[in-house]
Amino acid sequence: MHQIDVIRWLPEGRLLLLDQTRLPREEVYVECADERQVAEAISSMRVRGAPAIGIAAAYGMALAAWRAPEDESRDALLERLRAGGGVLCASRPTAVNLQWAVGRTLAAAEFCGHDEDPRHAVLDAALRIHAGQLAADERMGELGSELLPDEGAVLTHCNTGALATGGRGTALGVVRTAWERGKWLHVFVDETRPRLQGARLTAWELGRLGVPFTLLVDGAAGLLLRSGRIDAVLVGADRVALNGDVANKVGTYLLALAAREAGVPFYVVAPVSTIDPATPVGDLIAIEERDADEVLYVDGVRIAPDGVAAFNPAFDVTSASLVTAIVTERGVARPPYQASLARLAGAPAETEPQRLVGESA
Amino acid sequence: MHQIDVIRWLPEGRLLLLDQTRLPREEVYVECADERQVAEAISSMRVRGAPAIGIAAAYGMALAAWRAPEDESRDALLERLRAGGGVLCASRPTAVNLQWAVGRTLAAAEFCGHDEDPRHAVLDAALRIHAGQLAADERMGELGSELLPDEGAVLTHCNTGALATGGRGTALGVVRTAWERGKWLHVFVDETRPRLQGARLTAWELGRLGVPFTLLVDGAAGLLLRSGRIDAVLVGADRVALNGDVANKVGTYLLALAAREAGVPFYVVAPVSTIDPATPVGDLIAIEERDADEVLYVDGVRIAPDGVAAFNPAFDVTSASLVTAIVTERGVARPPYQASLARLAGAPAETEPQRLVGESA
Repeated sequence: MHQIDVIRWLPEGRLLLLDQTRLPREEVYVECADERQVAEAISSMRVRGAPAIGIAAAYGMALAAWRAPEDESRDALLERLRAGGGVLCASRPTAVNLQWAVGRTLAAAEFCGHDEDPRHAVLDAALRIHAGQLAADERMGELGSELLPDEGAVLTHCNTGALATGGRGTALGVVRTAWERGKWLHVFVDETRPRLQGARLTAWELGRLGVPFTLLVDGAAGLLLRSGRIDAVLVGADRVALNGDVANKVGTYLLALAAREAGVPFYVVAPVSTIDPATPVGDLIAIEERDADEVLYVDGVRIAPDGVAAFNPAFDVTSASLVTAIVTERGVARPPYQASLARLAGAPAETEPQRLVGESA
Repeated sequence: MHQIDVIRWLPEGRLLLLDQTRLPREEVYVECADERQVAEAISSMRVRGAPAIGIAAAYGMALAAWRAPEDESRDALLERLRAGGGVLCASRPTAVNLQWAVGRTLAAAEFCGHDEDPRHAVLDAALRIHAGQLAADERMGELGSELLPDEGAVLTHCNTGALATGGRGTALGVVRTAWERGKWLHVFVDETRPRLQGARLTAWELGRLGVPFTLLVDGAAGLLLRSGRIDAVLVGADRVALNGDVANKVGTYLLALAAREAGVPFYVVAPVSTIDPATPVGDLIAIEERDADEVLYVDGVRIAPDGVAAFNPAFDVTSASLVTAIVTERGVARPPYQASLARLAGAPAETEPQRLVGESA
């Protein structure tokens, strides 16, 4: 498989994003000239997946810095970056990587030396976030692969591959690494209504990778798990609370219940940046509600009668008690998560660039 | 709400079926001239819902009898009816009402007196099955309504209303009766992929009834139940095993798991004809697998890349341990179901025409 270029920063200060709303039919890039266009691309899900959103937002901050007048004062630039960060953070509320990346790039500007150009510091931080994600994906792939059998079937939800991280992916990155290491896996893919990331994006990625897979509607996952045909469930995360509760694509919670009932391990694969130090428990996570039209239309075709109202939460929360392990780039956390996640969050980041001094989480 | 005419037998021996594949856009009837056309209408889901399938199949038997040459011998007619019954029973494997209705109409011909015309006996049995369903629906509505709070929210899956039974419905019939009795209910409706019976059919029926409702994707039901906003889950059934295991539209099992986790009652509403005396436990129920294209296309629009395989079971099995009660027209069965269902199955049928002597189940 050729590397999928999901997010491309061009040296002359241009950001290209593979438009995921048009996959699998067309592979088209959209160009973002400023942070507002990046925020639009995030809210409309042209770029999606918690880690990829974080990277795009970091580059959005770099664009904000890049477009500033050269003679702008340091204070004015920081003000501009804070405003830009606000716009970006508002684009989607649930993925904590977004806030993390904005906070990190902003801190790079705020805390850079007075002999340094804050513009360069922001871009440098964005590039390091991107590179850090690539390395984190490699490591999560290695650690997660060890949890899978040499032969068997896994079930996954939404898209957690290259498209979701810009690297090799989180949960799907684990599948890819296991496959490349010779594990003979079959992947069952939830279509993942309403946006059909499984049917559109994961199917597209697995087709490119040559990994055998079968698509199913989200409701069929229970029967599949109950039948004993699945060896592990692998999902990503948009935010992990300190107690191990996981916010992820809507439908994840039902999978976790069915996995527990079937005695099948339920693994969450997510970089440490997904763990939110400000969220002690999952029920405090703000769940984004998106436009009802995502439910009422499929690909522009209306599926319900006129005048119908729809409830459209983008995510749900899975209790830590249903999670077998959380695979991060710093290690595999097991229950009790309060302790294991704290240990990983505090551990030195082997694969990540060193944290910037003074960075607030 | 005007009565929805789902299945119409015209006195001159014509059967009209409301084509449910074309709802909610068009209200069109298809005419079936013989049992093969009825079988096609069942397998293509122009008529669907376990009780409605049973009624349509019974009329299919009546058509087979009606179309026989007038001078055909009794033995030849019975042979013709057995063959027609085979065609009908093969049209969908999971709904036991289908086999029940075919067996019942066939027995009417086999056991009618020698001074009677078996053709009339078959039609008479079909008309009684239809009338019996209308009465059963009324009674299930009354019994089920008593289980619901005076005010609250219920969650339902697939379509279990007039379209599914030809009467007022099973699970949705309970909602309708409760609403008509002044209970202030809000209905949350799973869209029910892949065929979208919730989005297309239940939404259409509730709109006609004027009952307030909200549509959601199947994966969002977990979050909704976990949030504490649902007072009861109501579903139908395609087959109930003697131990209380329930085969119903795929996705039902996940709802039942989430309901138990949330402490929300999970009610199955199904006529006694849905209880299969030949099936001791749910895992013995044959689960129909339908064409992959139902997953790969929505309303003719392809949603996955070319060449993708899909797993498309029409039903799943919910363990009796997850079912709070089973509402039938003869009473409400509670655990242990082995005993309570046997009691109901053996009880005199208050609302149903008397069983024909010698009828095999």
